[in-house]
Amino acid sequence: MQSAEARFNKNSLFLALRKYSSAVRDMEQTILLPSLLRDVPSDEVWDCDAADESCRDLYDHYLMFKAVRTTVESGLISMDDHKAKKNMTLNKTLEPLLDTDPEALFCFHLRGLFSVMSDLSKKSQSLTEKYMDIIGVTR
Amino acid sequence: MQSAEARFNKNSLFLALRKYSSAVRDMEQTILLPSLLRDVPSDEVWDCDAADESCRDLYDHYLMFKAVRTTVESGLISMDDHKAKKNMTLNKTLEPLLDTDPEALFCFHLRGLFSVMSDLSKKSQSLTEKYMDIIGVTR
Repeated sequence: MQSAEARFNKNSLFLALRKYSSAVRDMEQTILLPSLLRDVPSDEVWDCDAADESCRDLYDHYLMFKAVRTTVESGLISMDDHKAKKNMTLNKTLEPLLDTDPEALFCFHLRGLFSVMSDLSKKSQSLTEKYMDIIGVTR
Repeated sequence: MQSAEARFNKNSLFLALRKYSSAVRDMEQTILLPSLLRDVPSDEVWDCDAADESCRDLYDHYLMFKAVRTTVESGLISMDDHKAKKNMTLNKTLEPLLDTDPEALFCFHLRGLFSVMSDLSKKSQSLTEKYMDIIGVTR
């Protein structure tokens, strides 16, 4: 009989989280001078308010990917005031969800987590490539 | 240096999922005659539409807990038409979330998953206790 441990290790949610973790490790190992990303605007569509201090340039994205990886690996969410405020807005969105049966809510969040992890993995890979372009190196 | 594997194993999301899996295993090992749960209404507030065929009695909850555990352990979401329809309603709720930055969205879904797993763990334990009451056994 397969152990619960082995089943979890093959779990596609854990593979998705591990894939993200690995993409950010690659990003960190490649980007030796993160300061080169300062003041470089992102060409991708990042949904950021222009007045939002947290996502001004690629350097901020670099920091954000690292922060998310810490949460992914620890599974513990810590948020500063700025992020807590954003989360309150999301929690208002959650209100109608509370009227939903727990199985559907579970699927909704699991699906959402898959989707956002996949998005973040791609974006961190794209940031790594952008850095290679900046320093004029091709892999 | 701690390996990524070890870090994930201590991850509190991983522990929350394992706790749920273990609560359902206990439920299955205790409830030897699940048919005794048929036609027993739940005293808890389960958010179910009266016309919703999927949550009529405690037996349906028993089946639901098992289905969610399969998803938790495999990490693969499979949904029948009925559940897919429910999920579409939730996806409409998701639309405003798409305008949110990915870090906040990640925290929202991670938090949501923790919350729903904790809720489901408690409910499956409560179903196990209810079954013990029905057969007149105290632990």
